[in-house]
Parts: sequence; structure tokens; C-alpha cells
Amino acid sequence: MGDYIHTNIAQDNVAMVRLELAQNDQIPLRRPFDPLIHDLDPHFKLTRFADLKGRGCKVPQEVLNRLLEGFQQDENGHGEQSHFMHMTMTKIGIGMDAAVVPIRHGGLSLVQTTDYFYPLVDDPFVMGKIACSNVLSDLYAMGVTECDNMLMLLSVSTKMTEKERDVVIPLIMKGFKETAYEAGTTVTGGQTVVNPWCTIGGVATTVCQPNEFIIPDNAVVGDVLVLTKPLGTQVAVNAHQWVDQQDKWNRIKLIVSEEDVRKAYQRSMDSMARLNKTAAKLMHKYNAHGATDVTGFGLLGHAQTLAKHQKNEVSFVIHNLPVIAKMASVAKACGNMFQLLQGHSAETSGGLLICLPREQAAAYCKDIEKVEGYQAWIIGIVEKGNRTARIIDKPRVIEVPAKEKDGELW
Amino acid sequence: MGDYIHTNIAQDNVAMVRLELAQNDQIPLRRPFDPLIHDLDPHFKLTRFADLKGRGCKVPQEVLNRLLEGFQQDENGHGEQSHFMHMTMTKIGIGMDAAVVPIRHGGLSLVQTTDYFYPLVDDPFVMGKIACSNVLSDLYAMGVTECDNMLMLLSVSTKMTEKERDVVIPLIMKGFKETAYEAGTTVTGGQTVVNPWCTIGGVATTVCQPNEFIIPDNAVVGDVLVLTKPLGTQVAVNAHQWVDQQDKWNRIKLIVSEEDVRKAYQRSMDSMARLNKTAAKLMHKYNAHGATDVTGFGLLGHAQTLAKHQKNEVSFVIHNLPVIAKMASVAKACGNMFQLLQGHSAETSGGLLICLPREQAAAYCKDIEKVEGYQAWIIGIVEKGNRTARIIDKPRVIEVPAKEKDGELW
Repeated sequence: MGDYIHTNIAQDNVAMVRLELAQNDQIPLRRPFDPLIHDLDPHFKLTRFADLKGRGCKVPQEVLNRLLEGFQQDENGHGEQSHFMHMTMTKIGIGMDAAVVPIRHGGLSLVQTTDYFYPLVDDPFVMGKIACSNVLSDLYAMGVTECDNMLMLLSVSTKMTEKERDVVIPLIMKGFKETAYEAGTTVTGGQTVVNPWCTIGGVATTVCQPNEFIIPDNAVVGDVLVLTKPLGTQVAVNAHQWVDQQDKWNRIKLIVSEEDVRKAYQRSMDSMARLNKTAAKLMHKYNAHGATDVTGFGLLGHAQTLAKHQKNEVSFVIHNLPVIAKMASVAKACGNMFQLLQGHSAETSGGLLICLPREQAAAYCKDIEKVEGYQAWIIGIVEKGNRTARIIDKPRVIEVPAKEKDGELW
Repeated sequence: MGDYIHTNIAQDNVAMVRLELAQNDQIPLRRPFDPLIHDLDPHFKLTRFADLKGRGCKVPQEVLNRLLEGFQQDENGHGEQSHFMHMTMTKIGIGMDAAVVPIRHGGLSLVQTTDYFYPLVDDPFVMGKIACSNVLSDLYAMGVTECDNMLMLLSVSTKMTEKERDVVIPLIMKGFKETAYEAGTTVTGGQTVVNPWCTIGGVATTVCQPNEFIIPDNAVVGDVLVLTKPLGTQVAVNAHQWVDQQDKWNRIKLIVSEEDVRKAYQRSMDSMARLNKTAAKLMHKYNAHGATDVTGFGLLGHAQTLAKHQKNEVSFVIHNLPVIAKMASVAKACGNMFQLLQGHSAETSGGLLICLPREQAAAYCKDIEKVEGYQAWIIGIVEKGNRTARIIDKPRVIEVPAKEKDGELW
């Protein structure tokens, strides 16, 4: 990594300043991120380069639906399907996280997705990893485990100094590339522009035989719902920013310590940067009936979309909410702001929500823990219904981890 | 098209206001764009939603190269190639406009590209068409004629009113989709976010057999260079904005009339919205030795990149510059601003620059004119050299069209 940086900034400028993650890193991460060495202002914050003002980066769901109406409907009869923001509408009415397009060769299909967003953590390297995991997650939700190619989409903020740009952008690229490598794929291209806000994302593409992907429309009554990552990333990321904002910190300081928030932030980064690849692989082994990944519209939003597109008359009922430790309390202390327990808190690069045959689900969760060392949870059931999803009145919050272990992140 | 709009805005709000293109449309376009009907302020300008201040949307070429250094080099030996902004570097040293990645199935390759940029014309529908043509152009430059799938990348400006958003975004989508249809492909998804600047672009992907693409590294001494669209789009787009800016207009008003500028603007839009698909098809028929598309780095920039990646010891010499009528004079009047005659003026969705066997080139140009009704030009030669490109001292400027024809755009 040192080599990497030295190719980009003059070596005699390199000071041993570490970004937030490294500065406060008392907790050995199970998969440690390289310490970031650079010569930026120690107060540099990547998240400063997108002035979201709490709006989120997303066009509201109902607006988007309206905007897309015309895009979907087809006066010439040549439109097939439209997939924006994790909502795909096809002639056969399947909701998919990635577009599936039959190609001209050998019964193969192109499975493809794109996503990009704004910095939500301050460590550029970790941000690159998260962006990459997040894009790939749409393929994994379709049970696709191999990605043939990635492109990176990047906007350099017009507000970055040249020095910031020359240090930060290569680190973002490095993180993105390393996670792509971890996923067994490569980044062969992309587009880089300038823009007031920094944006980071990519495109993931694979060409599949029919048995390589799982159309997420096959849930049956009696299935259970499994979630592969805890909720609460948005809460943790916000709480972490509040540590430096007295008025906001006052709102939660009786609930959590700075140390709690820092741990939650590190757990969030670790979780968001983690690939759902093993989760996707095991979907095949345990005969999953369909899945989606939990991102910007929160657990319930994505559960509802998945439910809506089922072939059978089923509904999803969610009883348990695994949440990064202490973040449920923080969310409660903030009133209606996050709507975490209502299932509306946005996640980034969240877990897969998977419909599994009841008799397979426990084994699925055990297997993922064995392979990866991360927990997965049975969070709900599939019952007869009209293709909706709901969270019960008083869901059980599962703190993740249940207990702090010295020297371990989870 | 009326139906389309009515699904998005209340019918009783629809006023018969036309955007610039339609308002001033005395010239029947050979392939007329639908008149745009909406209820926006007649002074609405899409280009207002990206404050480029003459910087262009691109990270400067030398900065980008530096930023990408680390991205390409690979401490773990697992990087294959890197393609950003029309520069692809692979282990085998080929410069390509699109990434070419062998896949796991049947000797097939994934050919893929992405591009996005800011509004440069004020008509949202035409802007959508241009963005789509521009993305596909990278595939066409590789001789690929079929696109299997497109994704659209869109940022809605935070500065748009809701009404502007609800009218403009569907029109952009419609233009994009129609051009995709014209190209024989469909848009199956994408990503839509909010951002201070409006951005528009997409991803084009195809899966090819080896004979379906042309690796652009095979130029030989004696080849000639053909260009399939005239230069000068950036000059025309800027001159058109100056009509309303007295100080800037003063600079060129002795050289051109408003009518001249309006025609040049319409010709630019027509040219940028036009697909390079026929040009790509004919590359196969006439045994092209390689091509690139002319975009942000100007004719010479892209010629140099193409030259650099040739297998043989060749160089390109350009003698002729086909330019949208009057725009060479405008560029000259602006001193060093555009560097059009030096080959540095940026183009958007420009023509293909193709290396063709000398004996085939005239037939290629004739054929493209027969099929499409658009001229192509022999602009230079391939001679022995060290893989560079240059424009001769006093290149011949070819005015396009050579003569104004009543009632015709070209």
C-alpha cells in the first residue's frame, strides 16, 4: 500500500497521519483495513463532499415510480423491463435486484446491475470497498456468485483541493479494486468526472447459465426469512458524525458512550464492506426460493418489494430485528428520525433477505457462520397472504454482537 | 409522445410551450425530433444544471493518468486492465474504447463501456438521445454492432423545481430509450440519484463472438484515416449559448449571424444524436484495421491514443478537418479557446476515426452516404512512424455542408 501512495504523491510529503479509523483503532478488526497513510489535514472528512442535509441521495420512492411510468410503458411495444433503484418491472412481473437479459448466444443471460452514491464514511479506502460490495450485492441477491466484469463510476468533487484529490481518489479506487479482487472479479474500466459532490459506485456484470441465478419469486407458505447482516448502518454512521456536533450529541449522550458509537461505526464499516458472496453461494446449497438485498429503502421496503413479486399468494411477517449493538437504543432516542424498528432506516450494502425452506434455514445460518465467522438470523416467516410484508408490533431486537468480547469487533 | 407526458403531469397543466429547438425551428430536420410540449418556463435551460464554468466535465488527461497509475499497477499481480475515460491499458497493451473481457462460456467476450456527462444542449429529449448515442459509440468504435443491454445513469439536479424534474427527467429518459430502440437494444435498468448537477449517461454491454469486434491495433502503412462525423460540436454549443450573452456575442458577431449559429447548433444536435452503428457495420465490410470514437479529448487526442496502441510502427498524419459550417471561423475568432484546428476541441458523441485500407476507403465513404445520407471524409494517412499522431500545419478545413440547401439541415 505504501508503494501505491508513493506513486501518487511526492514521497517527502508523506506524513504519518492516519484517518479516523486508524486514529481511534483500539479494536483489532477481524479483517484489518490497512492503516491509511497520507498527508492530508487530519480533520479531512470524505463525507463533507456531499451536502445531503438529511435528504438522502435517493429520489423519493413514489416520485421515482412516477418518473419511471413513462419509461416503462411503451408506445411502440418494444420495452421489456425497467430497473431503477432496485425495482425491476418486467413483462412477467418479477422484481429483481439486477436486470436479467437473454443474449444471442447459447441460452445465456446477461445479469447486470449498477449503483452509485455519496461518501458515507470518512475513510476513502473503506468507502471504495463499501461501494464495490454494494454494487455486487445486487448480483448476489439473484444467487449469482461469479461476476465477469466491473466498471467503476466516480465523481471527483470540485471542492477537493488537488492534494485531497490526489490522495483520496487513488485510495477509493484501491478499496474498490481490492474488494473486486476478493470477489474474484476485476475492474476493467469506468468513468471519472468532476462534480460538486463526490460520487462512488460501479457496474457489475455477469453472463450466466440458467442454473446460475435464482429468480426471486418462488416463496411458499412455511418458508422462513433469513437476514445475513445486522441493521443499523445508517444510525451508526450518523451517530458517529454527531460525536463532533454538540447539539446532536446531547440527544444521545445519555444512551451511548463515544466508545460505543465508535465501535458501532467500525462494525458498520466492516459489515458494509463485507461481500454477500458466501450468502449467495449457500442460497443454492439450501434451495433458497428468492432473495433481495437490503439497502436504501430499509428492511421493510425491500421486503415489500420482494413480497409483491412472488408467484404464490404469500406475505412476509418479520418478528426479529438484528441490529448493530446499541443502535436500536440510539434510534429510539431520536424519535421518528430513523424509523429503524419500523423497518424504514436506510442501509448501505446491507445483508441478503432470503426466503428459505423452513427445514433448511437453521443449517443455512450455521453454514454461513462456519464459513465466514459472521452470524445470520431467522427473522420472520412466509404465510398465506396478498404479497405484502410487515413487521410485528413489538419486534424482538437482537443486539449484534450480544456481548462485547475483548479484542474482537463482533 | 403526448401520451407519455400526460402520464407524468396533469393534463390541464399542459401548455404548448416548446423548447429552443422547436421555437426556432425554421429548418426542417431531416429526422425531425418530436416537438416538446410541456408547461415549463419558456426560458428553461437544461444546461443551467451544471456549472462547468468552461472547465469541462473531465478530469484533465494528465491528472487522470496519474490517478490511475496506482489503479493499474498491481502489487498482487491480479490486475488485468484498466479503462477510464476512453483509455484502456491491458497487459497486451491495446487501447480500446470499451473493455473486452473473456467470459466463462463458449469462447465469448463481454464488451462493455460506460459514460456520463452534463447537459450540453437545452432540449431534454435530444439530450437523452445524445447521451445514449454517446455511450453506444464506444461499442461501435470496436466494430460491435449489436448491444445486448443498456443501463441508464441519471442524476436529478437538486436545483430543479419539482415541476421541472417531473417534466424534464421523463423527457431525457424518453430520448435515451428511443435511441436505444433505434440501435436495436433496450434499457433494462439504471440508477437515479439527486445531485447539484444534472448528469446523464449509461452503460452499454454486449456479449460477442471473436469475429464480432475489431481490436483497434492493426493499422498498416498506406492505410487512410476516415472520419464519420464533422467536428465543431463544442464550438457550436458554446456559440449558441453566447447568443444571449452580449459580451461574448460581440466576440463573434462579425463572423456569424444568429441564424448561422442556430443552424450549427441544430446540426450539432443532429450529429451528436446520430448513432455510429452504420459506421461500425461497414467497418467489417471494408476490412477496417481499427477505430476509435472522437469525444472529450478532441480529434488529435483520440488519434494519438489510437496511434499509441498500434502493433505496427506507424503514425497518423491528418490533412483535412471537416467542420460544421462556420464553426471553424468562430473558433478562429476566439483565439486559443477551442483549439479546434489544432485538434483539441472536445466533441461529444463524435464520429468514428477509422483506419481503412487505402483502396477501400472511398467505397466506405460512399456506402455510408448511400445508407445513411451522411457524408464521411478521408482526413489523413497512416505512414511509417513511432506511434504518434499529428495534424499538418495548415490543414484543409472542409465546411459541412459545403453549401446551404433550402429546407435541408445538411
